[in-house]
Amino acid sequence: MTDTHNRSGVSPPTSQLLAPTYEGDFVLNGPLSLECGRILACPTLHYAVYGRLNAARDNAVLVCHALSGSALVGSWWPEIFAPGAVLSLEHDFVICINMLGSCYGSTGPGAVNPETGESYGPDFPLVSIRDNVRAQAQLLDSLGIRRLRLVLGGSIGGMQALEWSILHPGRVERALVIGVAPLGAMGLALNHLQRQAIQHDPGWEGGRYLPQKPPRSGLALARQIAMISYKSAPLLEERFGRNPNRNGEDPWSLNGTGSGLIGGRFDIAGYLDHQGQRFIDRFDANAYLAILRTMDTWDPLRGYASPAEAYGRIRARLVFVGISSDWLFPADAVRRFTEEIRTAGAHVDYREMASDHGHDAFLAEQAELVRLLQ
Amino acid sequence: MTDTHNRSGVSPPTSQLLAPTYEGDFVLNGPLSLECGRILACPTLHYAVYGRLNAARDNAVLVCHALSGSALVGSWWPEIFAPGAVLSLEHDFVICINMLGSCYGSTGPGAVNPETGESYGPDFPLVSIRDNVRAQAQLLDSLGIRRLRLVLGGSIGGMQALEWSILHPGRVERALVIGVAPLGAMGLALNHLQRQAIQHDPGWEGGRYLPQKPPRSGLALARQIAMISYKSAPLLEERFGRNPNRNGEDPWSLNGTGSGLIGGRFDIAGYLDHQGQRFIDRFDANAYLAILRTMDTWDPLRGYASPAEAYGRIRARLVFVGISSDWLFPADAVRRFTEEIRTAGAHVDYREMASDHGHDAFLAEQAELVRLLQ
Repeated sequence: MTDTHNRSGVSPPTSQLLAPTYEGDFVLNGPLSLECGRILACPTLHYAVYGRLNAARDNAVLVCHALSGSALVGSWWPEIFAPGAVLSLEHDFVICINMLGSCYGSTGPGAVNPETGESYGPDFPLVSIRDNVRAQAQLLDSLGIRRLRLVLGGSIGGMQALEWSILHPGRVERALVIGVAPLGAMGLALNHLQRQAIQHDPGWEGGRYLPQKPPRSGLALARQIAMISYKSAPLLEERFGRNPNRNGEDPWSLNGTGSGLIGGRFDIAGYLDHQGQRFIDRFDANAYLAILRTMDTWDPLRGYASPAEAYGRIRARLVFVGISSDWLFPADAVRRFTEEIRTAGAHVDYREMASDHGHDAFLAEQAELVRLLQ
Repeated sequence: MTDTHNRSGVSPPTSQLLAPTYEGDFVLNGPLSLECGRILACPTLHYAVYGRLNAARDNAVLVCHALSGSALVGSWWPEIFAPGAVLSLEHDFVICINMLGSCYGSTGPGAVNPETGESYGPDFPLVSIRDNVRAQAQLLDSLGIRRLRLVLGGSIGGMQALEWSILHPGRVERALVIGVAPLGAMGLALNHLQRQAIQHDPGWEGGRYLPQKPPRSGLALARQIAMISYKSAPLLEERFGRNPNRNGEDPWSLNGTGSGLIGGRFDIAGYLDHQGQRFIDRFDANAYLAILRTMDTWDPLRGYASPAEAYGRIRARLVFVGISSDWLFPADAVRRFTEEIRTAGAHVDYREMASDHGHDAFLAEQAELVRLLQ
């Protein structure tokens, strides 16, 4: 069957993707003590920079990426760099650092554990949001950047942006936190489903699969579960409705398997399958599990006696953005979270993005986001 | 680990579950020609009755069950029978018929195909909602029941109730259709995810697994995906929030597997695992796939030239119930569906059940439902 669902994929708005000024690795010059009690020996952070650091070193901006993102923010968030938008290649020095746990260059489950000489695999420890921020601070130190004009991110990137403001209050001027709050029960449930999809794949092998033999069907299903949580029901309805799959399958007929239990697909199913297939070609299952755990465990109040003690530390001016149709991090939850932080004395502004794109809106409707922030 | 999540299961409101007056099988005395073009040779319908048919044979009520329900409506919907509620054991003759495709007595994938002498397995054909209604009508004929005082059901049971009103307008006085409309893109997506969870389980064996070796983990995951669609986010938040699992697991520590990628569970995860485990002890994977397909393909307009032609056939007085927090069949979709039917000239009343239980409310908050209908 020909799958033509790539037509509905998100395309970059211009064919000229932004190339970074520099892309490289930073190796921490010592072990990173993790919140979970374990240690990462000299982990690597892969990062990309755009624009140039000025002489005063006061034009640095840190972008934190979402779950399956990379350091190449110019490729996945290009419209944020449009003239007059949020970031300026002329005036800003933009840094984006791949999260620990990822498979895009920073130390993750696929990296070699210097203690064993073999890749971490399932032994890769829990790296919290706070651990990531502490590692990122060392990278900025190495670049001579003491203070950030702005730190921003959506989803798990927003978790990092807020954590930066709490952990390093003197280093953050402004923070922009998009579509995020500590994960609620529904979000934890969705992550639990995705985790099981991978774990149940016999190819997962308890996390000890060979790189050339990964748990593809499990990771594809996990991505499909994630996709429905990133999109809103009205968007899916408008795009796919009850249409049969665009390749000509008929839900009333058998599909290729000849089983009466599995009919031809509806269009939404063809779309999800396509998204799952695209994902397994670009992401690693263990890295996915690692970052799910980073996301699940984020609690900005952990270790503080009260919200006042945690959020009272913040010196940055915060802007939170809720997305009207987001059901993974509902706008209401983001707004309530904002109020909790404001009550603790921080300077917080809340804005709501009206979009039917769901959680994905900060990536799918970048021009709208830019308008909201102007 | 001791799992104590059965505490949060729905308990019957009384210890005295209603026992049926009679429970038995009806074998169609000929082949059932299916909408998909195939034939079921003399299928069996398993059914239960409550109360007694009066001499005038005008007190019959048909209850249609939901996806994983059975003919024993007195066990899963007992409060509908409470004094002064919807049904009366004194005055009504209540019939509930197990759906074709199910594993609770009617012919399904686990039944023997008389043409081969072996169980259908994956060769079980698509049995549509309309096919079910036509088979059910033959059972009622055999009982001498010409006319139904009421036909009612929630979810896929509501699909059958409405289809009864369209297909046999002269036989239905009133119909009560709860929490349902033709499945939209999000619902089709959720079913697609569940289907894959089962198909990806190597134990599924293309549907040819031995009864004693079913695809347990796949079916458990499918049930967990379904569970989140049956509940509302606010309900999950209130019940589970970000609490660690009640058995003492800690999301910041490793779970029993020793993998750093899989931490101790949150309470919502323990709950979902428990629901998955409960389900695999009572349901069959192929039956689940069969009924998902029945649900997916339901389009009451199929074969009619227009909504007016289909819904214009209806003579019954219809009551639709939308559930305020239902995101599988959102109240708005149910209300719009009601309006489409009303426009075609049918007598339809729409009521909305205010509940934070989500789609499950018609089972989880039976007393509320009864109040709404009085």
